[in-house]
Amino acid sequence: MLIVMDKKATAEEVQRVVDIIESKGFTARPIPGGDRVSIGILNNEGPVDPALFIGLSGVKDAIPVTRPYKLVSRETKPNDTLIEVGNVIIGNGHLTLIGGPCAIESEAQAMTIAERVKEAGGHIFRGGAYKPRTSPYTFQGMGLAGLKILAKVRDTFDMPVVTEVMDTETFDRVEEYADIVQIGTRNMQNFSLLKRAGQCRRPIMLKRGMSATLDEWLMAAEYIMAGGNPNVILCERGVRTFVRHSRNTLDLSVVPVVQKESHLPIIVDPSHAAGKRDQVIPLSRASVAVGAHGLMVEVHHEPQNALSDGAQSLYPEQFTRLCRDVRRVHDMLKDG
Amino acid sequence: MLIVMDKKATAEEVQRVVDIIESKGFTARPIPGGDRVSIGILNNEGPVDPALFIGLSGVKDAIPVTRPYKLVSRETKPNDTLIEVGNVIIGNGHLTLIGGPCAIESEAQAMTIAERVKEAGGHIFRGGAYKPRTSPYTFQGMGLAGLKILAKVRDTFDMPVVTEVMDTETFDRVEEYADIVQIGTRNMQNFSLLKRAGQCRRPIMLKRGMSATLDEWLMAAEYIMAGGNPNVILCERGVRTFVRHSRNTLDLSVVPVVQKESHLPIIVDPSHAAGKRDQVIPLSRASVAVGAHGLMVEVHHEPQNALSDGAQSLYPEQFTRLCRDVRRVHDMLKDG
Amino acid sequence: MLIVMDKKATAEEVQRVVDIIESKGFTARPIPGGDRVSIGILNNEGPVDPALFIGLSGVKDAIPVTRPYKLVSRETKPNDTLIEVGNVIIGNGHLTLIGGPCAIESEAQAMTIAERVKEAGGHIFRGGAYKPRTSPYTFQGMGLAGLKILAKVRDTFDMPVVTEVMDTETFDRVEEYADIVQIGTRNMQNFSLLKRAGQCRRPIMLKRGMSATLDEWLMAAEYIMAGGNPNVILCERGVRTFVRHSRNTLDLSVVPVVQKESHLPIIVDPSHAAGKRDQVIPLSRASVAVGAHGLMVEVHHEPQNALSDGAQSLYPEQFTRLCRDVRRVHDMLKDG
Amino acid sequence: MLIVMDKKATAEEVQRVVDIIESKGFTARPIPGGDRVSIGILNNEGPVDPALFIGLSGVKDAIPVTRPYKLVSRETKPNDTLIEVGNVIIGNGHLTLIGGPCAIESEAQAMTIAERVKEAGGHIFRGGAYKPRTSPYTFQGMGLAGLKILAKVRDTFDMPVVTEVMDTETFDRVEEYADIVQIGTRNMQNFSLLKRAGQCRRPIMLKRGMSATLDEWLMAAEYIMAGGNPNVILCERGVRTFVRHSRNTLDLSVVPVVQKESHLPIIVDPSHAAGKRDQVIPLSRASVAVGAHGLMVEVHHEPQNALSDGAQSLYPEQFTRLCRDVRRVHDMLKDG
Repeated sequence: MLIVMDKKATAEEVQRVVDIIESKGFTARPIPGGDRVSIGILNNEGPVDPALFIGLSGVKDAIPVTRPYKLVSRETKPNDTLIEVGNVIIGNGHLTLIGGPCAIESEAQAMTIAERVKEAGGHIFRGGAYKPRTSPYTFQGMGLAGLKILAKVRDTFDMPVVTEVMDTETFDRVEEYADIVQIGTRNMQNFSLLKRAGQCRRPIMLKRGMSATLDEWLMAAEYIMAGGNPNVILCERGVRTFVRHSRNTLDLSVVPVVQKESHLPIIVDPSHAAGKRDQVIPLSRASVAVGAHGLMVEVHHEPQNALSDGAQSLYPEQFTRLCRDVRRVHDMLKDG
Repeated sequence: MLIVMDKKATAEEVQRVVDIIESKGFTARPIPGGDRVSIGILNNEGPVDPALFIGLSGVKDAIPVTRPYKLVSRETKPNDTLIEVGNVIIGNGHLTLIGGPCAIESEAQAMTIAERVKEAGGHIFRGGAYKPRTSPYTFQGMGLAGLKILAKVRDTFDMPVVTEVMDTETFDRVEEYADIVQIGTRNMQNFSLLKRAGQCRRPIMLKRGMSATLDEWLMAAEYIMAGGNPNVILCERGVRTFVRHSRNTLDLSVVPVVQKESHLPIIVDPSHAAGKRDQVIPLSRASVAVGAHGLMVEVHHEPQNALSDGAQSLYPEQFTRLCRDVRRVHDMLKDG
Repeated sequence: MLIVMDKKATAEEVQRVVDIIESKGFTARPIPGGDRVSIGILNNEGPVDPALFIGLSGVKDAIPVTRPYKLVSRETKPNDTLIEVGNVIIGNGHLTLIGGPCAIESEAQAMTIAERVKEAGGHIFRGGAYKPRTSPYTFQGMGLAGLKILAKVRDTFDMPVVTEVMDTETFDRVEEYADIVQIGTRNMQNFSLLKRAGQCRRPIMLKRGMSATLDEWLMAAEYIMAGGNPNVILCERGVRTFVRHSRNTLDLSVVPVVQKESHLPIIVDPSHAAGKRDQVIPLSRASVAVGAHGLMVEVHHEPQNALSDGAQSLYPEQFTRLCRDVRRVHDMLKDG
Repeated sequence: MLIVMDKKATAEEVQRVVDIIESKGFTARPIPGGDRVSIGILNNEGPVDPALFIGLSGVKDAIPVTRPYKLVSRETKPNDTLIEVGNVIIGNGHLTLIGGPCAIESEAQAMTIAERVKEAGGHIFRGGAYKPRTSPYTFQGMGLAGLKILAKVRDTFDMPVVTEVMDTETFDRVEEYADIVQIGTRNMQNFSLLKRAGQCRRPIMLKRGMSATLDEWLMAAEYIMAGGNPNVILCERGVRTFVRHSRNTLDLSVVPVVQKESHLPIIVDPSHAAGKRDQVIPLSRASVAVGAHGLMVEVHHEPQNALSDGAQSLYPEQFTRLCRDVRRVHDMLKDG
């Protein structure tokens, strides 16, 4: 933390800031500048709250210098985290392809799509049993019945499954059936859920909040790691902007930044970013080209009859083509 | 819903859209235009999912025409909802002033601040017992002990209290102690929590999500009303934008728009929007001038020692001045 | 500027940063911290380019400490700038009300509206002669003929006029006819135009760019002041966000922040922020309540026939009510 | 345009809307719905102004149905526009690589970098002679001397050059020296400049505005085409969002959307989107993978001494690697 004083700050005002810093047990180091004084704060463990200083008379600004996260930081753990789920490895050097419908609608639907995902070379099957829906009047998911269908998909096709958990009440149940437990965009800062996820024995896929900064997202992962679960997969899915030609704006620069700041794997969900089928394939190629460790894509054999998000679901043959394309991009990158 | 076809859409493509509409039990009404056909959808109850059409060949766009919300809509209930809490009335014609610290830190702190809030003319006391914090390493609130302090404040000063609930596990407890139960920004689309709030016997204060559209916010209120709780107070608290001189950007145009679209009361929280003390008073005046039914403001007698959000907390004497100023603005508006 | 080094930065990497700083003639002051070194830069006149350091090995971040603006800063000139136009004073302590149509459409239209603006107590008449339009196929303004109508309005009603200039070619002409020359949102960073405005003998009204930060906006004013024109009026008119219920999101917190950072007057244009008539009056009240030095509002006697922006234009009787309301708010604030 | 009436709109209110539509010479087609009437507008050439209807009593909404652009639309011209500059072709099927410094600083600097760009396989050289700078106190470009250096680069290395024009005064001069004339982000809606560009005999590279919607961007191109210049190259360079880990957020979904809506070529500038060198290579790969027709990248042999934007400039050897990588991605896509 660097405290920047007003040009006209008095010696008393400077001293008051120094006193507050030292009253917290930190070290204050005033830096007389050309036309104003700044005061560095040293020997603090973890970040200092700027609120201690902003608003004090004579203080112009309080600028954080260090990052607030610890366990997720590459400065703490330089090596990439690799996460094993069944015989799938997620993380640096691997390209994990996840496909499936937005929601599990029936056993027949799930099995039909899973077969096509498997054939296309998909590694993991996705499908929602508990669905966060903007409207209380639309399909809310099959619940436990959906989870059982997911288990059947896993057993039949030997593919791990990922599904979303919406609350702590149903967490045990989801944890029992899922290979990877997903925390959705709207729950990225549901801290009670994050704490429960910290005690989960399954890897957590943590989607980025709709308007989450990098720090907020990594701090949400920090909650999970601080709770004892080291296996967090980050998933970029687009952020909300003024743009209207896509549902959200996919933020691909976050991929190399996360990989620099953190050791955790990061995948991309182009389906929710796009909101429209015909943007999904190009954005998938871009995501792999930027260096993401995998993709999560919505696939449906009859999207026009899907109970949710049909407009952004690929046809199975499109998913097949996508898998082929992105594997080629990934191979090319590996060759260097 | 209006389906807009491509200029070059064939008669077969138009017919396919008509067939899908009618297969859902709705009425399709094609509207041949100058250079392209559009198709209106009639006799649908509730909104139609654009996903049914977007991505079909020949379809250029699917444009929602009606609003997705029902119970919260002024078209459903033209009269303003007034909410009684103790002897306070919240809603059209009233100006409800809520003050208190971000977090309850001790009985002494709460009682000291509550006395000053009461003296200033505040109607309701606020204070967090369960705190959603970005970092797992910062103060998370006093929990049950904090709720008990809130109860003591209510009894001592005869002021209703509002406090945040973070999850369904602690909902019973919060409901027992609070007069108004707050759902925070980060939980605005925590649908499990919204469903529980629908069964709550207390009014719910629903803060707007950090990047929530008007529709999403009103649909979150719709969840609560659809669950059986008609007493929802909306609270605007700023939205996330590119702007950096305030923590969030207070969206005051939402106040008249909500008042036009819905019968629910709407108040403003300028403290979280500003993030800095010296913006709070001007934004408070602006919020009342734009027509908000009340304010919720953070007040602390020693903000530099606050365990959270000190930088945006007013000193008690500032809150006193604020109350006086905004009452004058409100009176002036009432005189018309 | 503060250069923050990686935790693992070597002594050589630190030294290289020091060398670069000193090669520019500045003073480098390394600050050894708990777990990493930071390096302060002293004795620089004006801001230092972070690009000198970002990307160097061992450098984690380069954090600007001082503001980039000088002439517009209140640190340079503590007293409020007051701008006289005819017998109108714009700035602290005054409330300047500007009304008129988006575009001058005819002499009859302009005179009709001007009479109503004057009657309502408006101080300045606005009207576009050169119109920036998103589409090349819509009305582009009357040009010189419009300017002459503005001159007639001024002479008839003894009201100063403000109108937009779009380019340097027509600047002389606009300067000749207008009392205040407006630079529009889309030209806020048209630096050639800003330089010409610096040589203008009329005050400049500088609208904020659609996604301009505070610094960018003040730096645009700095261009004008650096060119020799000290009379700049800032005009907030809403910024572009994800919000869809208003055309733009009015950023009212910018008003007190500008008043703290700069000595220049700041007014608000609620019409372009709202984009819809029924939001304009409440936003006007809010703007004055937050402390703006004035308002610029679109008024049209027949908005349904306006050649541009009719949807956001007030009827003259609405403008009359608005003037009455905001004067009362302003008087109340002055009484303190 | 579809006019949506309130549920309670009277027959008179509906009739008034019909009258207004017909008074403009269009056809009104009322569509009685389940619970409200909508009114379609037919036989209009070009878009109708929603302002005619919004704000009328009984009118809830006015929804545009058709796109506002014409000449740039693929509905008008189905075939891709290919633009020839010297022996370089820009557009579908080609991958055009543009490299060079942000600003021309000296002949030696330009020649050194140009040689490396050429060696790496770059097709076009970029370099600014007139620089739009946020601060009036920073380097503003070499002007005419810079243009002459660009001409020397072209002659020496047989590479076309692209450079930015900032105003109409210097347009003739820039047009004389440049092979492609660039209109920058901050001037995307400088309509006087766009009109002049419509008369330019060189292709125009039109960068997207910092917060421009797709429609606004394409309408800016429409200005140029409507003025008589059919050769417009669109350049995506990131949009302004709340994100802070990159300077702007690169909006890659705009690439397939532009290619669907328009016949014009579209390239990507990852340097200005990133603002930091280490994001430029991954974003370049992503841009080509998403289907862009080319890249424009900043390259400098001594970025730490660059007079502007050094932090985002690649070293020449990085540009060489980038060219190799993206050509492989492009070849892979062409093979299908």
